[in-house]
Amino acid sequence: MSTANIATLVAYDCWSLLEGAEIARVAWQGEDGIELIPVNYTVADGSLWFRTEADSSLARGTAGHEVVVEVDHVDLADHAGWSVVIRGGAELVDVLDVPDMLVDMRVWPTGAHTVFVRVEPDRVTGRRLWAARPNEGDA
Amino acid sequence: MSTANIATLVAYDCWSLLEGAEIARVAWQGEDGIELIPVNYTVADGSLWFRTEADSSLARGTAGHEVVVEVDHVDLADHAGWSVVIRGGAELVDVLDVPDMLVDMRVWPTGAHTVFVRVEPDRVTGRRLWAARPNEGDA
Repeated sequence: MSTANIATLVAYDCWSLLEGAEIARVAWQGEDGIELIPVNYTVADGSLWFRTEADSSLARGTAGHEVVVEVDHVDLADHAGWSVVIRGGAELVDVLDVPDMLVDMRVWPTGAHTVFVRVEPDRVTGRRLWAARPNEGDA
Repeated sequence: MSTANIATLVAYDCWSLLEGAEIARVAWQGEDGIELIPVNYTVADGSLWFRTEADSSLARGTAGHEVVVEVDHVDLADHAGWSVVIRGGAELVDVLDVPDMLVDMRVWPTGAHTVFVRVEPDRVTGRRLWAARPNEGDA
């Protein structure tokens, strides 16, 4: 885009932002079009992890497929924010096989969350948008 | 999902929530997989509208295609929130042809935003998640 108040983020900044947030939106190709839901996530071992139930649409829809994960921060008062997008393959990992730091991972929905979805990033991109100065004209 | 602290929202509630928010995440099928970005939006004439530049990836990627739009609110302190998802066809509309209330629509990126993307909803779904009570066990 040719807009002047958006800048691309380098990978290091993308990962720093990812490590400081806790909600992502994950999209995948469902049978009936793109599925898109918010989820809790954690960064570990260079991957993004979601914790869910074995029969959830998240587990069934993403396992073995490419997914797109978006994490952002929106500052409604200042009209600013950032967005990081991760693309990668998703695989299911049993709770018995995840890195130690994930065993106690809490997620907001109740239930027996016995599986994890691991997203191993192929590509990470991000951008930051800051408030337009008055003379930049944000019509 | 079999989780007990998530409830489905009726269409009326979905639209009420949509009318009170201003940032959406829009996903579409790009040439290189699913694209997913945050955008400003407005509700008018029963549709969702984005304002953008004619040569933006948003305009070029969505025009004439099905898109998925997600709007949510996340309460990090209470571990609660809601999410509404709209599916529908997207079409480009020139600024000269939009409903009057949209002519002055402001978006956060700077630039000459001469086109609008109108998303006419085919399907609107939503759900609300509230904080788990201690005895519900959110492991």
